[in-house]
Amino acid sequence: MPELRKDPITGRWVIISTERGKRPSDFVRESVEIKNKGVCPFCPGNEGKTPPEILAYGRNGSGRDTPGWTVRVVPNKFPALGIEGGLDREGEGLFDRMNGVGAHEVIVETPDHNLTMATMPDKAVEETLWAYRDRMVDLKNDRRFRYVLLFKNHGEPAGASLEHTHSQLIALPIVPKRVREEVDNSKRYYDEKERCIFCDMIRQEIETEKRVIMENDQFIALAPYAPRFPFETWILPRQHSSAFENMASPLYGGLARLLREFLGRLDAVLAKPSYNYVVHTSPIGEEMNDHYHWHIEMMPKLTKVAGFEWGTGFYINPTPPEEAARFLREAAVETKR
Amino acid sequence: MPELRKDPITGRWVIISTERGKRPSDFVRESVEIKNKGVCPFCPGNEGKTPPEILAYGRNGSGRDTPGWTVRVVPNKFPALGIEGGLDREGEGLFDRMNGVGAHEVIVETPDHNLTMATMPDKAVEETLWAYRDRMVDLKNDRRFRYVLLFKNHGEPAGASLEHTHSQLIALPIVPKRVREEVDNSKRYYDEKERCIFCDMIRQEIETEKRVIMENDQFIALAPYAPRFPFETWILPRQHSSAFENMASPLYGGLARLLREFLGRLDAVLAKPSYNYVVHTSPIGEEMNDHYHWHIEMMPKLTKVAGFEWGTGFYINPTPPEEAARFLREAAVETKR
Repeated sequence: MPELRKDPITGRWVIISTERGKRPSDFVRESVEIKNKGVCPFCPGNEGKTPPEILAYGRNGSGRDTPGWTVRVVPNKFPALGIEGGLDREGEGLFDRMNGVGAHEVIVETPDHNLTMATMPDKAVEETLWAYRDRMVDLKNDRRFRYVLLFKNHGEPAGASLEHTHSQLIALPIVPKRVREEVDNSKRYYDEKERCIFCDMIRQEIETEKRVIMENDQFIALAPYAPRFPFETWILPRQHSSAFENMASPLYGGLARLLREFLGRLDAVLAKPSYNYVVHTSPIGEEMNDHYHWHIEMMPKLTKVAGFEWGTGFYINPTPPEEAARFLREAAVETKR
Repeated sequence: MPELRKDPITGRWVIISTERGKRPSDFVRESVEIKNKGVCPFCPGNEGKTPPEILAYGRNGSGRDTPGWTVRVVPNKFPALGIEGGLDREGEGLFDRMNGVGAHEVIVETPDHNLTMATMPDKAVEETLWAYRDRMVDLKNDRRFRYVLLFKNHGEPAGASLEHTHSQLIALPIVPKRVREEVDNSKRYYDEKERCIFCDMIRQEIETEKRVIMENDQFIALAPYAPRFPFETWILPRQHSSAFENMASPLYGGLARLLREFLGRLDAVLAKPSYNYVVHTSPIGEEMNDHYHWHIEMMPKLTKVAGFEWGTGFYINPTPPEEAARFLREAAVETKR
């Protein structure tokens, strides 16, 4: 018998096919392989092919927009939003609009075209996380913005248009609906119980064990109880922390290690799948709070999403999270260091 | 300058690229062509290849599960939910679950493998709508169910696993999140203004004209103000109507004509795209109300959906709805009758 499960954070119900659960080998799709064709605008030496850089780490002496960097942040060449101008909020009868003002940036995670986040050194992943943080902190000074959306599309089926490993950031004058819902629902839970719902969930998951994928002293990777997608995974700080950009310095290394090793396991279990991840953190101006717990939501791209899922916010997931967690937990990963 | 627009029903914000708006020819994808390979379980003569039929129209004299039908409804051979048993609602600490009890049925819209809903006679589309209605009314007698989800996946990229044109239905013991939100938000609007928000929207759209695609005496097809996807279209009854299955008999013909002609225009403008549609109607037990307005949401499959869209409920749409509506409005369609 399939199960209907409710996500306690969002209130969303999903169908979990518990009987004919799909195993990793049941998902047929192309592995993400680096083909290295043509000129890559993110490779060292081609700095002139991107808009002027916003931030770079690791360069010793050489000038802006030259090689020598380890992580480099540039404006998206085809931005979804414009950085100049006022919001001009206005109504059109029943409708509300404002100018599409915002930042759209690309974080090039390594100069090496042949690496992915799963094969990069931990140190390079950590630098990428620092770049996320530094850009968030800087963009928060712009009073027009209410949220900074950090995400990564890996592989062409997941929406990546360039092969060289990179993340993206969009600063927005509004808070995305799903984040707003999560924050508000967590606030309601806190008001009732004086506890963070994510902290409660982490405690329960550590106790029941079956959905825990990996953990270290600082972070935990879980298959959520009611995942929308096969092998969906959440990575959360074990101690309550309401904003990604405010996390204590020593945690960046711990997150980098767990993230890289998790992605290595994902590559091993699912044959280098495409994936997306998104950082969920508190909106600008409400960073310090006891109710919201920042985390990363990771969604491997394994299945086609059908019409009713778009139209209803209701999902059918053919792989129980307990099985997904077991496959990822048991995966042997070559730890190259 | 791109625009940020808010959908008044759900509160969701989307980015609309108003400047470099994508035209129909900018979307590269395969047309949905009927290949007619192999044995089709939905073709007449192969009735034994499906589970025993639940409903059939048009058969004269011949027995169940034999040819002669015009529309045929059968259980899905690989159902997402099980029809037998109780719900056994229970908690697991923080989490809530129940058995995956529900119906999952397939509506075969025509015996002719070579037709699509865009090329079927109006009469056949109308019969399909009647089959939707009859199955909904029947399933509502099952006290375990709270919602009947009617949807169609057209083309393999949209999730259709069989080519022969068909719709699907899933009866659920819960109300999908997105529908619950729409109903609750519409109720709040009504409580404040004593008007249906959809009726207000239809009035405003008819007045401003620019997002109206087609209309007849009974129905209207609109490009919504804040669409998530290029060429997203909503089809609504012009007069307030809270439940699809309660619509007056003469309206089925009007909806069939508009739906078929709309899909013909979609095929013409976008070169036979894949698409999904979903019927949004009032939940079981709250069918008669003044605040919710049933409608069809149509989503052509033209773009890849990237990570942050899944993770945030926030969308970037490269085609302004005003342009999409103009293309569809001006499309010349061969009206075969």
